[in-house]
Amino acid sequence: MNYFEEALKRHAETKGKIAIACKMKLEDKDDLSIAYTPGVAQPCTEIHEDPSKVYEYTSKGNLVAVVSDGTAVLGLGDIGAKAAIPVMEGKAVLFKKFGDVDAVPICLDTKDPEEIIRTVKLLAPCFGGINLEDISSPKCFEIERRLEEELDIPVFHDDQHGTAVVVTAALLNALKLVGKDIDQIKVVLNGPGAAGTAIINMLLVAGVKNVVACDSKGTLYEGREEGMTPYKKELAKKTNQQQLKGDLAEAVKGADVFVGVSKANVLSKEMVETMNSDAIVFAMANPVPEIPYEEALAAGVKVMGTGRSDYPNQINNVLAFPGIFKGALQARARDITYDMKLAAAYAIAELVSEEELKPEYIIPSPFDSRVAEHVARRVGEAAKKQ
Amino acid sequence: MNYFEEALKRHAETKGKIAIACKMKLEDKDDLSIAYTPGVAQPCTEIHEDPSKVYEYTSKGNLVAVVSDGTAVLGLGDIGAKAAIPVMEGKAVLFKKFGDVDAVPICLDTKDPEEIIRTVKLLAPCFGGINLEDISSPKCFEIERRLEEELDIPVFHDDQHGTAVVVTAALLNALKLVGKDIDQIKVVLNGPGAAGTAIINMLLVAGVKNVVACDSKGTLYEGREEGMTPYKKELAKKTNQQQLKGDLAEAVKGADVFVGVSKANVLSKEMVETMNSDAIVFAMANPVPEIPYEEALAAGVKVMGTGRSDYPNQINNVLAFPGIFKGALQARARDITYDMKLAAAYAIAELVSEEELKPEYIIPSPFDSRVAEHVARRVGEAAKKQ
Repeated sequence: MNYFEEALKRHAETKGKIAIACKMKLEDKDDLSIAYTPGVAQPCTEIHEDPSKVYEYTSKGNLVAVVSDGTAVLGLGDIGAKAAIPVMEGKAVLFKKFGDVDAVPICLDTKDPEEIIRTVKLLAPCFGGINLEDISSPKCFEIERRLEEELDIPVFHDDQHGTAVVVTAALLNALKLVGKDIDQIKVVLNGPGAAGTAIINMLLVAGVKNVVACDSKGTLYEGREEGMTPYKKELAKKTNQQQLKGDLAEAVKGADVFVGVSKANVLSKEMVETMNSDAIVFAMANPVPEIPYEEALAAGVKVMGTGRSDYPNQINNVLAFPGIFKGALQARARDITYDMKLAAAYAIAELVSEEELKPEYIIPSPFDSRVAEHVARRVGEAAKKQ
Repeated sequence: MNYFEEALKRHAETKGKIAIACKMKLEDKDDLSIAYTPGVAQPCTEIHEDPSKVYEYTSKGNLVAVVSDGTAVLGLGDIGAKAAIPVMEGKAVLFKKFGDVDAVPICLDTKDPEEIIRTVKLLAPCFGGINLEDISSPKCFEIERRLEEELDIPVFHDDQHGTAVVVTAALLNALKLVGKDIDQIKVVLNGPGAAGTAIINMLLVAGVKNVVACDSKGTLYEGREEGMTPYKKELAKKTNQQQLKGDLAEAVKGADVFVGVSKANVLSKEMVETMNSDAIVFAMANPVPEIPYEEALAAGVKVMGTGRSDYPNQINNVLAFPGIFKGALQARARDITYDMKLAAAYAIAELVSEEELKPEYIIPSPFDSRVAEHVARRVGEAAKKQ
């Protein structure tokens, strides 16, 4: 099937993907007087007197805003607010389908970080959570940090943390297969942008001690001069303890795990051959991974994951965000902490039983109906512990 | 039934009134690749190349933002953004139920007009129309005017124009009953706030020549000093040609029509008795009208309407806004003009046939399933004429 042609056809048929549904019946005059005037005045008054009751009488508690400025949409880049809508509607239907979370696409006609922050704060009253999406790096870090600080509802940049959670889940299970301990492995991450940075932070929280980040100019290390943004400086401080210098080929020598959120075909067969035995490769560049699936296996990779649905082990955010939000919303968490994200990673990983676990099956399918519920439960438990 | 108690109960049961529904199927891996990555990239690219295609591939064309700052909610006043949510969700379910228009409540955490304008402009890309709601007067006028000017989608302050359209519809039919011509009647409007101002403007467009507006300080006339806002000065210019001075009792002498959007019991039986024969009274103060229904009839009123559902002739906005937006969205109108609003008023009026028309039945019931469709058709025709 040609997904692109078919997508155009179906989007035109349905004119987009989302609609509003009514949760309260509205069949007669009495219903109207209850859902609307005069009866509706009563929940309004109660909320006015005690704002926490907004969770009791409105949809806020299950409503997430999927917010984008359209500056980093898929691999298409800065295509603007209107062109980003199909993705945000897509996200909204995934939220509904997989997590029964109601999500509303909000595409903002500005690229200014301060304006994005201000706007999201102003429209927060109706929403129980904010899912930031496809906002370019590095401003996405600041926007998320500020909103987390300034809002009393959870804020989650899915491009960062959704990916990080699923990579961590995949790694936890892959390590079981190869029999290595998480604190003993060397991980090389190629492409420390939004997702890459979050993956590194998450892996450190999960127990990885030795991570080397690599961009187009080589490894990140403290004191590197070229192309170091404040965020990369930050990463250099907490990674690459051995101050390894050189390009990606240098970095992957002796590595146990390669994680790519970069671009097509940057990891060669020869480079893989210099990795440790039982290598794990998550090559998530889309649509063409950092190394082709077959080539990676031929070069000795033991466990391979990609972003694609046509190969085993698809590292797909949809395993994470519906359940994470569902859990955070149900627990009425103020933030989505690393403990909660780690709980989500463990939840995803533990849905693959010891008997099922094999190199071609380290994470459940997006259509595994247990996922969101299980992730939500574990995230909720982690939230309550705090 | 105690609507207030029942409203609390039902709102708590359903946790609010709105949810998201998916318009595109999402059952297997292929569906996922079409609704989301990689297929979704294609509609994004098409919209990026031709922004007008946003109406073809997204939900924008049927999606309305119901925007409030919570400053003038029902009769409750300035109760804030969170406490306003039940009303905005109510509006959203009425939009869906009566017009099959998808509407999203947006309650803004600011009262600053400039910030409201800016925020609505920033979130406009996803929406095909903006319904302003329960924003206090006089800032509502400026907010609507600016947004109409600066956005390329229709903007409609329902508290103003929805009410004005339904009052006009009711008047058109009431005049048939009493056999008076619209350009010969004298109308007194009590309470020239947001709704009152819009009603006056609408009646003038509909052909009324003689309108006298009255506030708590008496009639508005050019040169009045006390309590004249710029908006009232504007009204004074186009109403009260005879420069009638004095209080409401003075104003209603010899009037054919009284329209109240003011407060309980300000119109006495004695005042009604000074009106012309076959008087028409629309007493819409909520929940207690300007004069009780029975008292008005006893004083000789021929046709009486109120805002209440437990008396005949409920002047209810729900007769107008779902069809007006449906028609404007379908016609992809840039604005909702007076021609379109007048078309809506005629559409509502003409659903009461000559045979059905009687003092107790001048406008259709909100549950008359023909209303929204018929209003939408007439509004669409008017839009296309422009």
